[in-house]
Amino acid sequence: MSDLKESTKSTSVVYNGDFLDVRRDEVLLPNGKTGSREWINHPGAVVIIPILPDSKIGLIRQYRYAAKSEFIELPAGKLDKNEKPEDCAVRELQEEIGYKAGKMKFLARIHPAIGFANEIMSVFLAEKLEKNNPDGIVFTILCDRGERYTSILD
Amino acid sequence: MSDLKESTKSTSVVYNGDFLDVRRDEVLLPNGKTGSREWINHPGAVVIIPILPDSKIGLIRQYRYAAKSEFIELPAGKLDKNEKPEDCAVRELQEEIGYKAGKMKFLARIHPAIGFANEIMSVFLAEKLEKNNPDGIVFTILCDRGERYTSILD
Repeated sequence: MSDLKESTKSTSVVYNGDFLDVRRDEVLLPNGKTGSREWINHPGAVVIIPILPDSKIGLIRQYRYAAKSEFIELPAGKLDKNEKPEDCAVRELQEEIGYKAGKMKFLARIHPAIGFANEIMSVFLAEKLEKNNPDGIVFTILCDRGERYTSILD
Repeated sequence: MSDLKESTKSTSVVYNGDFLDVRRDEVLLPNGKTGSREWINHPGAVVIIPILPDSKIGLIRQYRYAAKSEFIELPAGKLDKNEKPEDCAVRELQEEIGYKAGKMKFLARIHPAIGFANEIMSVFLAEKLEKNNPDGIVFTILCDRGERYTSILD
């Protein structure tokens, strides 16, 4: 067991919105004192690196309200209830760029906001893609693998 | 202007804790409809890649309550009020590994939790390090640059 471990004494939901589930816990610290920890209970997410049939990487354009700006991103999304990361990756790829992946390879798990959220993001490499929804591709942007990406918005 | 832009109609603080500032905004969507956005108002943060005098990278061991686990991480931390990212990087490096950086080079800005927080994390490379607080180094772990890091906790 970690000598840094903080044990939960009590937990409470301090905000439960449509999207964010915010908790505040009282914890026992390793030094024997008590403290509080506020954190976001997150369902988990996936991000996909889609290798399109022409060997380029598919990216999307998305407005991110919290950051008040538009971004060029890899397709990504949150897990639905009881959804497995791989199923989520297949679904998000379909929804966001309109492709079906013949091969979805798990690469890694990351903790993007480790200081305040329990979000685990699974990273997938999607290969052998087949376009199955021409209308689904709204903001797909292509860049070569290995080539440094420069913004097309400038 | 982005054709994806979501304009703020109203904003409210739905939870203001010791650590988390949670907002819920009503927004005007590009399609003319209204919607809501919940987000974390974050002061910003830094993460530092410290190149120690022996050319190894200094890492720290930290318990992350939200993820309920101990992690090996680069030194990092949140900005104090009105603190500039570079000053924060110098302070965190001192606090977390007990070194003063002769050179602190800004590398990039990232948005770690772009789906639900406005956090901007500035990435710095710290070089020409001098140990100035032997007691400050509690959990420093070294790994070679270029060498794949494997967990020492297994």
